[in-house]
Amino acid sequence: MATMNDVAKLAGVSVSTVSYALTGVRPVTPETRARIHAAMDELGYQPNAIARSLASRRTHIIALLFPGIELGLSGTALEFVTSAAETAREEGYHLMLWPIGDDEVGETRNLIHQQLADGVLVMEVRLDDPRVDLLRESQTPFTLIGRTADAAGLDYADIDFDTTVRDALDHLIGLGHERIAFVSHSKASLDAGYGPTVRAGEAFERHMTERGLPVVARHCDESADAGRAVVSELWHAHPDITALITMNDAATFGAMAQLADDGRQVPRDVSVLSIASSPRVAALSHPRLTTMAAPGTELGRSGVRSLIERIEGSQSATLHELVPCRLDIQATTSPRTKE
Amino acid sequence: MATMNDVAKLAGVSVSTVSYALTGVRPVTPETRARIHAAMDELGYQPNAIARSLASRRTHIIALLFPGIELGLSGTALEFVTSAAETAREEGYHLMLWPIGDDEVGETRNLIHQQLADGVLVMEVRLDDPRVDLLRESQTPFTLIGRTADAAGLDYADIDFDTTVRDALDHLIGLGHERIAFVSHSKASLDAGYGPTVRAGEAFERHMTERGLPVVARHCDESADAGRAVVSELWHAHPDITALITMNDAATFGAMAQLADDGRQVPRDVSVLSIASSPRVAALSHPRLTTMAAPGTELGRSGVRSLIERIEGSQSATLHELVPCRLDIQATTSPRTKE
Repeated sequence: MATMNDVAKLAGVSVSTVSYALTGVRPVTPETRARIHAAMDELGYQPNAIARSLASRRTHIIALLFPGIELGLSGTALEFVTSAAETAREEGYHLMLWPIGDDEVGETRNLIHQQLADGVLVMEVRLDDPRVDLLRESQTPFTLIGRTADAAGLDYADIDFDTTVRDALDHLIGLGHERIAFVSHSKASLDAGYGPTVRAGEAFERHMTERGLPVVARHCDESADAGRAVVSELWHAHPDITALITMNDAATFGAMAQLADDGRQVPRDVSVLSIASSPRVAALSHPRLTTMAAPGTELGRSGVRSLIERIEGSQSATLHELVPCRLDIQATTSPRTKE
Repeated sequence: MATMNDVAKLAGVSVSTVSYALTGVRPVTPETRARIHAAMDELGYQPNAIARSLASRRTHIIALLFPGIELGLSGTALEFVTSAAETAREEGYHLMLWPIGDDEVGETRNLIHQQLADGVLVMEVRLDDPRVDLLRESQTPFTLIGRTADAAGLDYADIDFDTTVRDALDHLIGLGHERIAFVSHSKASLDAGYGPTVRAGEAFERHMTERGLPVVARHCDESADAGRAVVSELWHAHPDITALITMNDAATFGAMAQLADDGRQVPRDVSVLSIASSPRVAALSHPRLTTMAAPGTELGRSGVRSLIERIEGSQSATLHELVPCRLDIQATTSPRTKE
């Protein structure tokens, strides 16, 4: 039976290059890779992944605890998943989706017990999250995309909501706005302790209060209709609002529609700034939305790299990475005109 | 060392129930599952997935050849991936993402050579697709989401573009429209032989010709700006157009914006029907888009089920499944008013 040595000899490369071509641990040019594959075919060499994983006691599989269909809207989630899969691939690992369904504790325990994955990425983290407790007890390497209330000893990469909200307010206040309302995710997500809802809400309250400005904030279900209803209620209660910060893509589009129906022009009468969104979603709006784009690609890359270091024992420090959303000024924010 | 028998005894269930709880092959109530997990913990039982896969010569892993970031916009792709992951889970399998990057032949060969996956799902299929040739030669079980030009002997689940376009035209013609333009995906996707672009374009030409109506069709890059430009050009060349069929979400939103800027009201002056789209994208539009929703969930389910039957040798016939998009009438189509 042919060995990796035989393949290397026939392809005219080193054994490590053959290994790199198979695992993706280091880059190999397409030409070299093609030569190695040709040699493997000629010799009938089969680098059985299962046999390799038994030898190394590693499967080179990373599982992503995947929350399921309800997240389907978010362009950010898809960017994150794609980035995580591509980063894993570059590092010689594979990303496996592990959908949670309705039994998150059972599914997390199944994942731990099956020992199929060397490590776990957890997304949609809540402040108090039983999945995190289970993973910690099991001593499975894991990294959070998001973070629990007390994440001191845990690896995480999360959006920096405090800086994001501060930057959003700096942009709007710099344009002369003072009556600024915040439309966030649903009350249900707050009650569930969903990190972004809790942290963005707290940041908005703190930064407005520090500036001596009134705090007007609403939770809103994740639908265009709910966004319409919130806008109607808001302007009834606070007719002097001149700017809106939203963190809820479907509601943002509903809010824009309701403002149009009510004869309020964006941005002449009302500025709208959508945070933790994505340029792809912004491009669907007319006028094009000013957004603060969620760093889905960066979080996927950092989270996977850190997790692999943790798996391989090469990590020098706990990952505590907070990345703010980036301001992308488009057509829905402008200087305040109303007195 | 504890065995599965010991776990079953302590949990008060049969050995097969323990197996079902671990593999997900059949449903087990959360209560039973919790009891089994408690027994496993008490006994320190570790059902090593790798050992099991060696015993069965199967890994119970399905790889999804995943095209990468450029698809990020599509709500349909995320629905498909989520449905595929959940169906695999229900059947006791795992879905692994295998991003292709720039070297699709090399990555496909790597996937085949590593023997990590029992079977492969291929998405974004082109009429002439080298990945399909490689998989066929390797005798790896695979299922196409989409289909090649000659897919006679292959398992596939695809959108039925012919029925979709016919149903779209029936809806618009039933409303009195006769001057109907089609805005599709980019010329680049046509040149690459991307199945949806080719098949929807052919269907539009055939069904319009059969009805004795003029064929006005345009390719359009996947951006709102390109959608705007196409609309400007279309109405310059064909001022009598009263209805638009689009198959390109970003372009659809650009087209709607350009129609608004030009003072053309939707649907009073122009009806807009977006095909192979999703209700989630439709809900972002104002007015809410009439769409034909792509069957992402159905394709994920059928594709995975068929692939597992193929892997396990229980498939009775080749899968040739064509599912049309479903018409969802919302606020952008109405009877023709212009004479």
